[in-house]
Amino acid sequence: MRSSSQYSRCSEIPTETLAPLPTMSSSSSSSRDSPELRRDHIFNRWVIISPARSRRPSDLKSHSPTSKPNPDSTNSCPFCAGHEAECAPEIFRVPAGSSAAEWKVRVIENLYPALRRDLEPQNPSFDGMSVRGFGFHDVVIETPSHDVRLPDLSDLEIKEVVLALKERVKQLKRAGSIKYVQVFKNYGAIAGASMSHSHSQMIGLPIVPPMVSTRLDSMKEYFDRTGKCGLCDIQSKEILIDESSHFFSIVPFAASFPFEIWIVPKDHSSHFHEIDDERAAEFGCLLKLMLFKVALQLNDPPFNFMIHTAPFELPFSFSHSTHWFLQIVPHLNNFGGFEMGTGCYINAVFPEAAAEILREVNVPK
Amino acid sequence: MRSSSQYSRCSEIPTETLAPLPTMSSSSSSSRDSPELRRDHIFNRWVIISPARSRRPSDLKSHSPTSKPNPDSTNSCPFCAGHEAECAPEIFRVPAGSSAAEWKVRVIENLYPALRRDLEPQNPSFDGMSVRGFGFHDVVIETPSHDVRLPDLSDLEIKEVVLALKERVKQLKRAGSIKYVQVFKNYGAIAGASMSHSHSQMIGLPIVPPMVSTRLDSMKEYFDRTGKCGLCDIQSKEILIDESSHFFSIVPFAASFPFEIWIVPKDHSSHFHEIDDERAAEFGCLLKLMLFKVALQLNDPPFNFMIHTAPFELPFSFSHSTHWFLQIVPHLNNFGGFEMGTGCYINAVFPEAAAEILREVNVPK
Repeated sequence: MRSSSQYSRCSEIPTETLAPLPTMSSSSSSSRDSPELRRDHIFNRWVIISPARSRRPSDLKSHSPTSKPNPDSTNSCPFCAGHEAECAPEIFRVPAGSSAAEWKVRVIENLYPALRRDLEPQNPSFDGMSVRGFGFHDVVIETPSHDVRLPDLSDLEIKEVVLALKERVKQLKRAGSIKYVQVFKNYGAIAGASMSHSHSQMIGLPIVPPMVSTRLDSMKEYFDRTGKCGLCDIQSKEILIDESSHFFSIVPFAASFPFEIWIVPKDHSSHFHEIDDERAAEFGCLLKLMLFKVALQLNDPPFNFMIHTAPFELPFSFSHSTHWFLQIVPHLNNFGGFEMGTGCYINAVFPEAAAEILREVNVPK
Repeated sequence: MRSSSQYSRCSEIPTETLAPLPTMSSSSSSSRDSPELRRDHIFNRWVIISPARSRRPSDLKSHSPTSKPNPDSTNSCPFCAGHEAECAPEIFRVPAGSSAAEWKVRVIENLYPALRRDLEPQNPSFDGMSVRGFGFHDVVIETPSHDVRLPDLSDLEIKEVVLALKERVKQLKRAGSIKYVQVFKNYGAIAGASMSHSHSQMIGLPIVPPMVSTRLDSMKEYFDRTGKCGLCDIQSKEILIDESSHFFSIVPFAASFPFEIWIVPKDHSSHFHEIDDERAAEFGCLLKLMLFKVALQLNDPPFNFMIHTAPFELPFSFSHSTHWFLQIVPHLNNFGGFEMGTGCYINAVFPEAAAEILREVNVPK
């Protein structure tokens, strides 16, 4: 993936020109006043791209920006430095052995875990209806400071967060009985956050969620049909936002959400937890840039990000087609019965338009 | 499905005793302090049932009840009687030919349709990335009165709404080029409603959404394995809320959402639009009862309902396993990155507990 991106903080800017977006519709992406149904080959879902009539894409802003400064104060926040004893047990801290005034990142248990690590794991049978709620639900406190957001971290600090996420996923792999780990961040109450102090979470599951199986199958189908990985194969510069040496960021061709962003490694790689130090730094840097752009362009909206990786045990036949990436979803509208009933979303902003706007956001250095 | 339901407005109360819920977990549903992973065989998804620690299920209420009286007034609402000319074109009204002061239900085009009926339909090829946004997006105005909610309608009036939905789906079938129709209702802004005047919607799609295909495949798999339709096979009285002669309402065994409700026809039937007049009346009556219970128990929460039916062209081999139903989802919490990333939801209320509470809600006659 190459482009003449306007802004790229982490790397040089290549200048190759790429092909326009493929589309089988005669009402192509160039006529952006008419709706289009697009198919996402990664998640195997359809989206209705239906341009808003009444306003330009660049006018779309969050109506519920995440309030700053953070509402609960340092005095009452258990994630702040000096309050470590008020949290659920610590799993590790960075640097290891550092004191209250010195730690940069802490990985702790969730005080209200969705799944419990102390239960005996059970193997679900195919026709089984339920299994015991064994699993892990952990929190990564991204900074000791209450009023610092993830993109406010320095390049070195955000690298430490990425490496802490990687290390905890690797630990869960070694623990056994865990089949898949979902790493995610909820920012803002509407996006599901209950703590305002900057943090990410992960849930280690004793099952592979069907949505993950669907993604793996859909990417394998694409590979079997085209001989290429669906993410390695992304060619269009129209949806590119930025890139660095080993990563690029796009608004996906069939984005389900306005201003949805994917950060994709250029190296074909199935598992996030196999990222090396150099790439962790670069990935953190591009993530930081994307979150800054989202906050600046969209009025500091609530958002989620999710790392879509592979299950720990991945059959060899899937390794050529499975490629991890991170998805950022700003919360700009509510979802209703149509989306819930069909799994198809209605996106009012053409991805090419969103990418163009995000490319041009000028992030102060 | 039979039960000793405490409350059943539409029918006699049978008294048969049924088997307790099957579960393969030793931490069974009877110990409701421990989380459980449950598999939904209809949608092919998992849910984490993880009881809230801090409060009882009966304490769960909406924090954002839908404001009443409705905020925009009769004077400015285009859905109100007397304002018919301000709407997008009318498709039909009930009774046909009735005047402004007399209509009970109006079916109109959506003024801001997600898909456009005036585009040429295109057949998506398997490897196609997009098709023209042809389709239908209609609105069913359920009452001429601004301050009347759906459950406030009389039994006869709600039957007319059900029959109007049926009639419009049948028209879309005859129109050709439409493969699936999603009927849905958004109640409250958080649930996606932009108009407060009581209405439902439907979108006729030129594709079958993958989530619908997944549901059909999952129900067929259940049928092939057990010889029974997964909805006809529901046996447990623990999850029953109410029933009438031809319908029952349950909190599904693997409910993804707290106080989620399904209304299921007892007759095995693939298509909602094949409902007859007698059943339409009964279905409307049970829907009304469920919406009343939700509003009373949960503090008038925003909600969605969706009718899950079959695509118009259903292969014969699917007809034994496909069974339409209506799903009601109250909005009681926000969803975050875990749900978005995995398609697995975390439900803090055991379905048996929710069913027990809803069974006992006393709806004034």
